[in-house]
Amino acid sequence: MKLGTCLYNDQTYVCIAEGDGVLIPALEPGFDQPAWRDMLTLIDSGTDLTVVQAAATDAMRVDAANITLLAPIPRPRKNVMCLGLNYLEHAEETANQIGRTGKAPQYPIVFTKCPTSVTGHETEIPFDPDTCSQLDWEAELGLVLGKGGKKISRDQALSHVFGYTVINDLSARDIQLNHKQYFLGKSLDGGCPMGPWIVTADEIADPQNLDISCRVNGVTKQASNTCNMIFDVSTIIEWLSRGMTLEAGDVIATGTPSGVGFVREPPEFLLPGDVVECEVKSVGVLRNKIV
Amino acid sequence: MKLGTCLYNDQTYVCIAEGDGVLIPALEPGFDQPAWRDMLTLIDSGTDLTVVQAAATDAMRVDAANITLLAPIPRPRKNVMCLGLNYLEHAEETANQIGRTGKAPQYPIVFTKCPTSVTGHETEIPFDPDTCSQLDWEAELGLVLGKGGKKISRDQALSHVFGYTVINDLSARDIQLNHKQYFLGKSLDGGCPMGPWIVTADEIADPQNLDISCRVNGVTKQASNTCNMIFDVSTIIEWLSRGMTLEAGDVIATGTPSGVGFVREPPEFLLPGDVVECEVKSVGVLRNKIV
Repeated sequence: MKLGTCLYNDQTYVCIAEGDGVLIPALEPGFDQPAWRDMLTLIDSGTDLTVVQAAATDAMRVDAANITLLAPIPRPRKNVMCLGLNYLEHAEETANQIGRTGKAPQYPIVFTKCPTSVTGHETEIPFDPDTCSQLDWEAELGLVLGKGGKKISRDQALSHVFGYTVINDLSARDIQLNHKQYFLGKSLDGGCPMGPWIVTADEIADPQNLDISCRVNGVTKQASNTCNMIFDVSTIIEWLSRGMTLEAGDVIATGTPSGVGFVREPPEFLLPGDVVECEVKSVGVLRNKIV
Repeated sequence: MKLGTCLYNDQTYVCIAEGDGVLIPALEPGFDQPAWRDMLTLIDSGTDLTVVQAAATDAMRVDAANITLLAPIPRPRKNVMCLGLNYLEHAEETANQIGRTGKAPQYPIVFTKCPTSVTGHETEIPFDPDTCSQLDWEAELGLVLGKGGKKISRDQALSHVFGYTVINDLSARDIQLNHKQYFLGKSLDGGCPMGPWIVTADEIADPQNLDISCRVNGVTKQASNTCNMIFDVSTIIEWLSRGMTLEAGDVIATGTPSGVGFVREPPEFLLPGDVVECEVKSVGVLRNKIV
């Protein structure tokens, strides 16, 4: 099931993708499940997926033209947690570019993106040349946790995943490199496109076998597979939860493969008019235009 | 005025420090200002301080013994934003320790601490030797924003500050250094003691002239003054808001002076039984015990 958050008649609803439209359970007359008010409430409720599917059967269908899709979680309750250099070829291309010896990180590199940076599919990303001149793409598989916990073992980790989404970890390279710690360069307004949907975990048999790619104006810039992650999804959850209690609704971006702009010869960056598409097979295509 | 958040009869309230007790406006019979339900709602309401003071006059007084003080903002709406290496002598002691040339950062170094790490004054900080063996102290002046904004100029920045608090930016040095980006080592459960109070901005004539210190078991480890910040409070707000919209309720830790544990000869770290006190003159003393 593909779950999203949409704006319909100036109200926000959880919706379910169906064909070229959506089902909105909360619009069904007499429907009384407060969990469907918003995605975080739905996730918190621990609603059984069979119940979700039953709700969907009777739900009201709305054409795509009549809704605006938002990020599946428009406002996370904390920063999005992101893996850095989690694909070997990307770790190497980055090391070469900044003049270090290329090698895989021994420990996961984790930074965050501000909740204010989160935006949805097909939104326009503002380009502000006064602040950043080196805006770069990073296609990533995103995780949304359905169940929190601490010291979650690798064996149990996948049972904590509610679903998967696509994240474009847009990066202001000039800010990121000048300021050393990545947070500021990763947190521009509009710098965290997410969506279009959360694909529930039951639909993804193996999160480590998904083609992942990024196209800019139709030209493929990144093309890899999640099997190339250095720290896989289960290991990431194990590491993150060692000393920090994870929570339902947490969003984790699992890192980007090689092919980003700033390591190219000559370097390539996003400019107004450019259209970026990030795709994770079976999860979705996330498209945004820079303006 | 010193504002806090307390637990009284299993309910959470905004309170005002008075002598060795607190005033709890919401307990006044007939009191009907929903903004006083919690600190973030109060800050969002943009309540005039004169109104706050009027409310305090009639408020119910409760002895300190009958309340539990929480962090003034027990659950921030996003990660706490923190400055790294923002005092020259601390930048130098750190550079020496990790074998780099000591120099002041040219650009603010900003990382974050997870909302789940936030804890209050006099809470016990759990020490987990399986996760971290190098727990270190960092006394810091904390800012709480009362008004958000983007591209806030240095001249206007202080008008965005609701108040000041004390933050102990507890740091798991082994995790912080192994994982390169600081987030994980800074986000242990209990790793962000904050409080006891938010001192409203009107009481702090100059945030760049406050003595700041840290004592471990009564022995002074850090002693400096906020005049020694490399990027002052106004400059920090200007930098943070360049590309990212800041919001009311945002919490910013402004960096720590020299004297942390991991650069000492031999290195010193916190262990169960240790009591850490962080003090910023006119703002407060934040005390926590490691257990």
